[in-house]
Amino acid sequence: MGDAQRVDADVVVVGSGSGGKMAAQRLAGAGRRVVLVEDGRVGGFCPYVACVPAKSLLLSARAGLSWVAARAVRDEAASHRDDSAAAAELSGQGVRVVRGRGRLAGPGRVLVRTAGADHRDDGDGADDGDDGDGADDGDGADDGAGGEAGGGEREVRAPVVVLATGSRPVRPDLPGLAAAAVWTSEDALAAADLPGRLVVLGGGPVACELAQAFAGLGSRVVLVQRGATLLSREPAWVGEVLAGALRADGVDVRTGAGARAVRAGHLELSDGSLLPFDRLLLATGRSPATEGLGLDPSWLGERGQVRVDARCRVVDGAGAVVPGLFAVGDVTALSDYTHAANHQARTVVGEVLGRGRDADLRAVPRAVYTDPTVFCTGDVSGAGALSARFGVGEVERAALVRLSRRAPVTGAVELFADAATGVLVGAACVGPDADSWGAELSLAVRAGLDVDLLAHHVRAFPTWSEAVFPALEELRARLGAGG
Amino acid sequence: MGDAQRVDADVVVVGSGSGGKMAAQRLAGAGRRVVLVEDGRVGGFCPYVACVPAKSLLLSARAGLSWVAARAVRDEAASHRDDSAAAAELSGQGVRVVRGRGRLAGPGRVLVRTAGADHRDDGDGADDGDDGDGADDGDGADDGAGGEAGGGEREVRAPVVVLATGSRPVRPDLPGLAAAAVWTSEDALAAADLPGRLVVLGGGPVACELAQAFAGLGSRVVLVQRGATLLSREPAWVGEVLAGALRADGVDVRTGAGARAVRAGHLELSDGSLLPFDRLLLATGRSPATEGLGLDPSWLGERGQVRVDARCRVVDGAGAVVPGLFAVGDVTALSDYTHAANHQARTVVGEVLGRGRDADLRAVPRAVYTDPTVFCTGDVSGAGALSARFGVGEVERAALVRLSRRAPVTGAVELFADAATGVLVGAACVGPDADSWGAELSLAVRAGLDVDLLAHHVRAFPTWSEAVFPALEELRARLGAGG
Repeated sequence: MGDAQRVDADVVVVGSGSGGKMAAQRLAGAGRRVVLVEDGRVGGFCPYVACVPAKSLLLSARAGLSWVAARAVRDEAASHRDDSAAAAELSGQGVRVVRGRGRLAGPGRVLVRTAGADHRDDGDGADDGDDGDGADDGDGADDGAGGEAGGGEREVRAPVVVLATGSRPVRPDLPGLAAAAVWTSEDALAAADLPGRLVVLGGGPVACELAQAFAGLGSRVVLVQRGATLLSREPAWVGEVLAGALRADGVDVRTGAGARAVRAGHLELSDGSLLPFDRLLLATGRSPATEGLGLDPSWLGERGQVRVDARCRVVDGAGAVVPGLFAVGDVTALSDYTHAANHQARTVVGEVLGRGRDADLRAVPRAVYTDPTVFCTGDVSGAGALSARFGVGEVERAALVRLSRRAPVTGAVELFADAATGVLVGAACVGPDADSWGAELSLAVRAGLDVDLLAHHVRAFPTWSEAVFPALEELRARLGAGG
Repeated sequence: MGDAQRVDADVVVVGSGSGGKMAAQRLAGAGRRVVLVEDGRVGGFCPYVACVPAKSLLLSARAGLSWVAARAVRDEAASHRDDSAAAAELSGQGVRVVRGRGRLAGPGRVLVRTAGADHRDDGDGADDGDDGDGADDGDGADDGAGGEAGGGEREVRAPVVVLATGSRPVRPDLPGLAAAAVWTSEDALAAADLPGRLVVLGGGPVACELAQAFAGLGSRVVLVQRGATLLSREPAWVGEVLAGALRADGVDVRTGAGARAVRAGHLELSDGSLLPFDRLLLATGRSPATEGLGLDPSWLGERGQVRVDARCRVVDGAGAVVPGLFAVGDVTALSDYTHAANHQARTVVGEVLGRGRDADLRAVPRAVYTDPTVFCTGDVSGAGALSARFGVGEVERAALVRLSRRAPVTGAVELFADAATGVLVGAACVGPDADSWGAELSLAVRAGLDVDLLAHHVRAFPTWSEAVFPALEELRARLGAGG
């Protein structure tokens, strides 16, 4: 440690993505001295190269914008991938931003290797998505905006350390991949050029959103999913409806299709077929970013995630709390959604401020912003549950939309109720605005409401929510609750 | 009574609007012999000349359709105002439809004056909206479709009578009105021609929806509202936001403006100004349709409505139940929404089938399908409550929509919590898709959930629902619940 400086604080947060940023802001707002350590963009992936630009491209494609227009809108939505405003905002809220790579050096001790001493990047090794807009993480504006830079290493000491380092894309082990024109989702969402032929590897939310967005903007898209359906965590019909919608949008959806190798600009599938591509988008999942963080191996779970208890305290394999150490967001692998990370951040804030309360992730919405939109919540496995489904296309709203827009309405809602108690435990919603009307069901799961009460509630005519009624009535009849 | 015939049944329902139709269908489905008496279109106003065509015109206007195209879509959505399919549906479900005007002739006795003996119309005396599409209530298809016609009077005897006769437009007492080119909302929604200049009298949901629809389709619209704001039952800001949106759509909104007289194609306001019109749309409210029904005056409340208890049983002024007599829908004046009538119908069905349960109308959504959409629920008076508001335009979804559609996002959500218990008692939502994301809040009111639980719930990023969070957190802080 050459010119080590020491900083004392009440809390040091390592990683400034959704969860880390929120924890830092709220603890600073409560008067705590907070240091936030970030080696990439302040704000993490979500605002610049993930959720926000993805939703922007989807909205633009739906609105019929050209690639050039959609790209301009995307870049504006993503602040041109320039984090200086975010850094300034945090600084204005009393958070001290230290740019560099942090690692635990002992209880309450974080060593930060600052930019001058350590090459900074987004951590995924990809730079082919850079559109040359001049927004460089290391530019001089950072200092003015509240960031602190400079070579060397410094130590931050604080009784509370929050790990919020997020996740990294998993690179599949495919022969020939290293030499291929591949994209991570981050690359795709920062891309300057629209690929003529895009092959998407994966069938999760990111793969589906980007396949629809790029198809809508003009790419010829093939989606290659190893599993039998898209969105394999959800009921099969959800993925099937979505596959149908993607196909209607021109996406060549291949399910049950394994990738074997990449050669000469083609993806070779297990069945020997060759898919030519200009870009191969890898959307095969992410893993917790813990490398080089200085963590004890006993704190890591089977998927490499940081183990936490319900208060987001880091625990070892035996469940013993590591004093003063918290983790939130993707690094905990409990959920990979921004809103779950935010909930965990609120949990940490409560715990640090002495009004602790367990996080409750049972009803976290799993939203996919395709058209139709997917919104699932709670337990949709069917274990110990009765389920009933009803088509969104059968409600009056659908008839109205079909006639006015001359567009089909697809989707359904499936409800899962505990077979013994009748409590709603999960819901899978697919359809227009499902991310909005599904919120009622997410709350119902969270609050532990039962089918009887839910069926006795009044839903407005003519809304999408009316699709919930028949499913509830079927469940109520089968539960034998009468009336 | 010339050729009176007598029909015996288990239930006779007088009026086939939303509530009456649902009660008839469900009771027939449960094996009861049901007679449904209707003197207008089977299905009532909603599918033909109210909710359905209104929403259709709004959607079409938003989609940029011309008047001619929007009218065609509207007429298709409204089944060309031909009720034969609805009559056939009911017949197929085992409901015996008797066309004619029903009146109570004693306990369990309904006399029906059938079509041949009594001129049939929609009950509002208006016929200038007829577009000559050949769909005549009295055509021969009715019999084939399950209706029964024929001159004279017949008697239906049943131990249970359900009154579902709906409401009639209130005609304001304005000098010169009789000779003017006026429309009721039913006329407007069946109209063949688009008026060049439309003056809308009223400021409630119907007035606002039709003003926006006709303005979007090309009429020059002036809306004249006596009260200080639109939607006077809701918080003032709701009407103000809506007025702003209507003005942005070209509607000349005059609030605090009384109408004094109609003369020579002009509406004269209290301040002496003259508004020229080609059509004057009367949307100044409706009153329960009880005339000629043979009701005891003691069963009627101050507004002329049929008094009912929580089980929808008709009661007299002292609260004593009139045996075997129920009422649902607009005629009870408890709510003027289709979904409330349906809830009352379910209540009657439960009561008749011996699994009675009180109706719960506390959380009935009050939706207005304008853009932005309005969705209010529960008690928004502020009495005994704390309230907090947050702008829908401040959430990430709004930023995304603004950029992709180059359109402003207006609206807000205001939450009302019981000041003592923290239970959510009401909500007012204005914004895109508010009829969908507001459903969560309506359920919260219905289930009696408190601010603490609601603030601890996870809402998806980036949805409109996120606007709820800051309002909840403000309420929680003010309620002193901590965390």
